[in-house]
Amino acid sequence: MTAPRIEFIGITGLPEIKPGDGLGKLITSAAASQKTPLRNSDVLVVAQKVVSKSENRFVDLKTVKPSALAVQLGKAGGKDARQMEVALRESQAVVRMDMARGILISETRHGFVCANAGVDASNVPGEDVVLLLPEDPDASAERIAGEARAASGVGSVAVIVSDTFGRPFREGHTDVAIGVAGLEPMVDYRGTRDTVGKTLKVTQTALADELAGAAELVMGKTAGIPAVIVRGLRLQSGTGKATRLLRRPDFDLFR
Amino acid sequence: MTAPRIEFIGITGLPEIKPGDGLGKLITSAAASQKTPLRNSDVLVVAQKVVSKSENRFVDLKTVKPSALAVQLGKAGGKDARQMEVALRESQAVVRMDMARGILISETRHGFVCANAGVDASNVPGEDVVLLLPEDPDASAERIAGEARAASGVGSVAVIVSDTFGRPFREGHTDVAIGVAGLEPMVDYRGTRDTVGKTLKVTQTALADELAGAAELVMGKTAGIPAVIVRGLRLQSGTGKATRLLRRPDFDLFR
Repeated sequence: MTAPRIEFIGITGLPEIKPGDGLGKLITSAAASQKTPLRNSDVLVVAQKVVSKSENRFVDLKTVKPSALAVQLGKAGGKDARQMEVALRESQAVVRMDMARGILISETRHGFVCANAGVDASNVPGEDVVLLLPEDPDASAERIAGEARAASGVGSVAVIVSDTFGRPFREGHTDVAIGVAGLEPMVDYRGTRDTVGKTLKVTQTALADELAGAAELVMGKTAGIPAVIVRGLRLQSGTGKATRLLRRPDFDLFR
Repeated sequence: MTAPRIEFIGITGLPEIKPGDGLGKLITSAAASQKTPLRNSDVLVVAQKVVSKSENRFVDLKTVKPSALAVQLGKAGGKDARQMEVALRESQAVVRMDMARGILISETRHGFVCANAGVDASNVPGEDVVLLLPEDPDASAERIAGEARAASGVGSVAVIVSDTFGRPFREGHTDVAIGVAGLEPMVDYRGTRDTVGKTLKVTQTALADELAGAAELVMGKTAGIPAVIVRGLRLQSGTGKATRLLRRPDFDLFR
């Protein structure tokens, strides 16, 4: 038996992404330039930050007047009050708020649970600018996949848009999938048999999150590698959405 | 610039693991047999299941008398009451319990928060047998690393013991690190500068969890691949423990 093998290949040489840039096309040519052109069944993991930049999701903080709540949160957490104001506006529900430490864990309009509704200033040029999540990250993934397929001529390229979230119980952040196109984000083992013949009852693997996580290790936070090719997965293509990874609040013991 | 690249290589051909087996040695020879011998700076991800088997962490359910609570939980969740009894005994705190659906999320003796204290029957031969987590998974990782280094002659092999956990907010399971040897489980970006020169304030990346997650995609649940080589990470070796990934309960907004 040949050893199964998955590769994560960082894509270097991309320019600073600006509103209107065709990310799928830029990634395709950067991959070709570094002699790792896209191939059949590749999955592209693309960092939310460049997706949001290409979609002009910048907010000029000079236009934002913070509420009293945002001022308090910002003071306690050492953050710009106007950034906290934007985070509150991007939230559809507060999951936990710690006024003493300035922590806001909320549910974004899309249903993601994360700190500050994903509103972020790191790796964003300019002092008074923050970046929002894409309006519809599944649609972003679809658009990038379409561009990459057109530019590369490879029809089966899938895309994951990834972002860096914290989580309960465990320290450290991991990257997860907030947008998906061309693959099923979960592998469903329910009903299949394990190596000793027992029927597996509950295991569904969050494939897209696990890919996003490892891709992040290739990206780093400071290396300027906003996209990674995942190669070697034996996947059926699919039409799943990243929203499939969201637990319904009424089924969640932690909301 | 050469494209950074990480590979995950599944190790095939391992026998069913039995108590007393030297896992590090077995993995080293299986890797050599499939012509992917261990190399400098490789990280081995090893599934908790085979680690627990090698450490004889089996429990014979015929010796277990379930409490009334375990009977109720088992009935509601469609699980063996004796397995739930073992799960309760392996817990040092209950984090959430849903009697109607038979769900137990607890803190294990080690401090991991997961369903049923990690007590599991899948991929375990025999009808009345369950498997516990290793007594000290960091020590297990250390032992496996020592064996692998001795058998391969490669002094810098690191080891992660992985297990499959659920998580709040998101559907699907991911693999995380429950034991670590020879590497730091977190990458600390605090104080470094991002691509636009801003100082990163909060990001610590749960490296070991992200490696465990992607390794799981190579392992699968049914393929009999309990160990994976991660190759190409540019890591400093370290002496961190997987317990470093555990959030202190009093700092956790979800306990």
